[in-house]
Amino acid sequence: MLFLIGFMAAGKTSVGNELAALTHRRFIDLDDEIAAMGEPVASLVARDEPEFRRREAAALARVIDRGDADIVATGGGAASFGDNLARMRGAGLVVALGVDLEHARARAAGGGARPLLADAGALFATRAHAYRRAHVVVSTIDRSLAEVVREVAAVERAWLAAPSRDATLVSLGERTYPIVVDDGWQLGDLLQGATRIALISDDHVAAHWGAAAEAAIGRDLIKLSVAPGEASKSFATYERLCNALIERGLDRSSAIVALGGGVVGDLAGFVAATLFRGISVVQLPTTIVAMTDAAIGGKTAVDVPAGKNLVGAFHQPKLVASALQTLATLPERERRAGFGELWKYALLDGGELWTAVDACTAWAQGGGPAPFELRDVIARAVAYKAAIVGRDELERTGHRALLNLGHTVGHAIETFSGLLHGEAVGLGLIAACRVSAALGVARSGLETDVVEALRRTGMLVDLDRYLVSDVLDLVRVDKKRVGDKVRFIAVRDVGRCESVEIAFAELGRILRPTRAP
Amino acid sequence: MLFLIGFMAAGKTSVGNELAALTHRRFIDLDDEIAAMGEPVASLVARDEPEFRRREAAALARVIDRGDADIVATGGGAASFGDNLARMRGAGLVVALGVDLEHARARAAGGGARPLLADAGALFATRAHAYRRAHVVVSTIDRSLAEVVREVAAVERAWLAAPSRDATLVSLGERTYPIVVDDGWQLGDLLQGATRIALISDDHVAAHWGAAAEAAIGRDLIKLSVAPGEASKSFATYERLCNALIERGLDRSSAIVALGGGVVGDLAGFVAATLFRGISVVQLPTTIVAMTDAAIGGKTAVDVPAGKNLVGAFHQPKLVASALQTLATLPERERRAGFGELWKYALLDGGELWTAVDACTAWAQGGGPAPFELRDVIARAVAYKAAIVGRDELERTGHRALLNLGHTVGHAIETFSGLLHGEAVGLGLIAACRVSAALGVARSGLETDVVEALRRTGMLVDLDRYLVSDVLDLVRVDKKRVGDKVRFIAVRDVGRCESVEIAFAELGRILRPTRAP
Repeated sequence: MLFLIGFMAAGKTSVGNELAALTHRRFIDLDDEIAAMGEPVASLVARDEPEFRRREAAALARVIDRGDADIVATGGGAASFGDNLARMRGAGLVVALGVDLEHARARAAGGGARPLLADAGALFATRAHAYRRAHVVVSTIDRSLAEVVREVAAVERAWLAAPSRDATLVSLGERTYPIVVDDGWQLGDLLQGATRIALISDDHVAAHWGAAAEAAIGRDLIKLSVAPGEASKSFATYERLCNALIERGLDRSSAIVALGGGVVGDLAGFVAATLFRGISVVQLPTTIVAMTDAAIGGKTAVDVPAGKNLVGAFHQPKLVASALQTLATLPERERRAGFGELWKYALLDGGELWTAVDACTAWAQGGGPAPFELRDVIARAVAYKAAIVGRDELERTGHRALLNLGHTVGHAIETFSGLLHGEAVGLGLIAACRVSAALGVARSGLETDVVEALRRTGMLVDLDRYLVSDVLDLVRVDKKRVGDKVRFIAVRDVGRCESVEIAFAELGRILRPTRAP
Repeated sequence: MLFLIGFMAAGKTSVGNELAALTHRRFIDLDDEIAAMGEPVASLVARDEPEFRRREAAALARVIDRGDADIVATGGGAASFGDNLARMRGAGLVVALGVDLEHARARAAGGGARPLLADAGALFATRAHAYRRAHVVVSTIDRSLAEVVREVAAVERAWLAAPSRDATLVSLGERTYPIVVDDGWQLGDLLQGATRIALISDDHVAAHWGAAAEAAIGRDLIKLSVAPGEASKSFATYERLCNALIERGLDRSSAIVALGGGVVGDLAGFVAATLFRGISVVQLPTTIVAMTDAAIGGKTAVDVPAGKNLVGAFHQPKLVASALQTLATLPERERRAGFGELWKYALLDGGELWTAVDACTAWAQGGGPAPFELRDVIARAVAYKAAIVGRDELERTGHRALLNLGHTVGHAIETFSGLLHGEAVGLGLIAACRVSAALGVARSGLETDVVEALRRTGMLVDLDRYLVSDVLDLVRVDKKRVGDKVRFIAVRDVGRCESVEIAFAELGRILRPTRAP
């Protein structure tokens, strides 16, 4: 079954109807099923919303049990209540139709009765979390009905071909791909069409997990390894890998598998993006940073002396498969650093994820096998990023820029200090709070709360130590620079971030260290 | 005015009607205008086609003179007769709707009376040339009516923003770009939005044309130059350029202008494709090869020891502007080599272009200012390539592979021998004829005709001299390799080429030299 969820006026009924007609499948609008119980939905909601929610849950259960529908459109709130969402995920593919609050308002105003339209703003913020628990968010913004229908059909095909029914999908038309998080690697048969497969890793990861990855792939591999650490993300290593892969007989129909953290993923991804002008890549991330950020979204790069990631390409993988078992062998410092990205997602996504990350502090400090809570955190972070990439693949609409929270200053600190990416991002989050406070947008006490949160997961918090003039100079070569300004992600509060433009001079003034380094 | 031309059942009337409705413009179907003269088109064509053509030309002239229509759909033959096409180009934008013969047949069979359907095959070959004289070919294959309408609207916007009303357009949605061929550079204001502009050239071209290009751009430039010759298409030069451009202050909103031949265009294009994960590039090609091939279509690359162009990216330019005046300073050898690509297009496009290229032999041998015929040849080659790139941007449908005619063996010869690209492509064309003959598909005498044509333009023709075993080994690392086979463009006759798969062993057997090297 295919379930369509999403905010009011996202187009769930129209899309469901149209897709059903095109593919000769049976469509049910859950509101009709509820109304058949005796009272139209609009009046029932207005009269007794709890009773409406009970009938909604019962109607959903009945539709699933009966099995006489292929495509089901739900009401805007269905996914947020009780175990409706889990029930839908258990019975098939859940597609959230993504819409902006302003678009939803504009569309809803033109339609029939919308009992909850008056509270749209508050509802939107609340329900956004539930929609991100779908398998995939398909954006409806600036798309015609036919385009949305086609996109939903494309993500459904990708889901059917995915290694796991539990995969999260990045909605990119025919290039839609699954992200699978499990204890071991779930690869399905997505690599079986490749003429040859090259496994690129670093020496550390290869020693721990090379054999297990090879077994999971189950094919003869061309194995290449680089030295662990950021220094491998260089032109020299990139050139060496390209030449080695050509010599070893890769062709345009071959695939590269990147096994490792962000360095390996970015480097092997850039090789895949440019070898023969682009071949397939599968990402097998082995760090928290890579699982939740670097491996998803197609950003690949090498570093140059002037800064990190300044040369690269957008090249989406065919599959991202994370094996949580690999986190058990993370060095302690890497493990703690991973929380830099997790706190970033917590600030972006809001309360539920913040609480969930906080529940992982014992593991951050003590290590061992990944706890259940961490799996949930990673799944939520993955879903957050997947939804953004599907809407703004090439960082053009400004939407994807949100993911740079903490990275403007973080990258500069990383380049200057040699800290791990996650450590530097953590410091960058503190910097983002401080800048937001100086701009007058942050709630009071936000920086202190973030510092305390970072501290609970054993992270560096002494931002002032790194705010030397060289770091501020490095911010100036950020890719997001536009003339004398930079796009900066400001934080109003947990779950409320936004992109602002700020002059370098202003940024330098705000971040001038308050004490000597 | 916007004119829609194209083969029967390409959708000219539907697209014109729909676009007119969406944009509140006035639409005329030329067939209606003709029928208003007293006799329906179908019966008139069947009764007296010459009379129909006279009325068609008169109706077109009248519609243009009257000026009471904004969008005009023509009959399938209108563009092929008299000065209809020139008249339309003089009055506005001419968009050809592209369709395959098989698709056209399938669509036409379902519609109303098509008096010329019986001769569709012969007509299609004849009329294809006229359609390519449009400003742009918009493919209708695998696209809905709404998608075609949107694409036509996008190319119209690009045409209005182009530096010249005479530009040829590459149809790529919002990334549609113009190709302008004139005596000097026509840049319009397409570079004016860039924060900074870097001009990348080679020392030879910079000395001759750097100042003129700078004047045409009319902005402060960051100027960088590389050594002339293929050796500059290296990882080392690529790295040096990236670092220099970052140091000199380029940002994501800056643009690179590539001034030179294929080496500069490929190299600067690859820098633009990957610097900050992609910035704008404008191509100012200064050789025949670059004007007709390398600068168009977004292929960028560097060479590796194992072969040419094995690492690169697809990155479309914002504009390609050719100044024919630059051809006057081409070294003699480069000038002759340029005819490798021109004869390739002649073999692909057929009789008219073949004759036109042949009319340039005096210039090939003697040099001087580019003659009028050469301008026509370049414009036709540009239009041929633009239409193919618009249909198969990323070389996925096999359509774009046609442009590799002569390049499979040509690249290998170039890598091995150090010949110029065009010289090697010329030899590759001879090899393609020989392979096609061995496969039993070429008409007899084809190889001899091609050798004679190449000789008339002063090109190398001694293929056997280069067919040594190292060259055949090099063919094996061609990007078009798939396992033990390679996709190869075979030639049946002038204007009749097709993609075939051939085993390396077979290719090696056919191309084994007939005499000692």
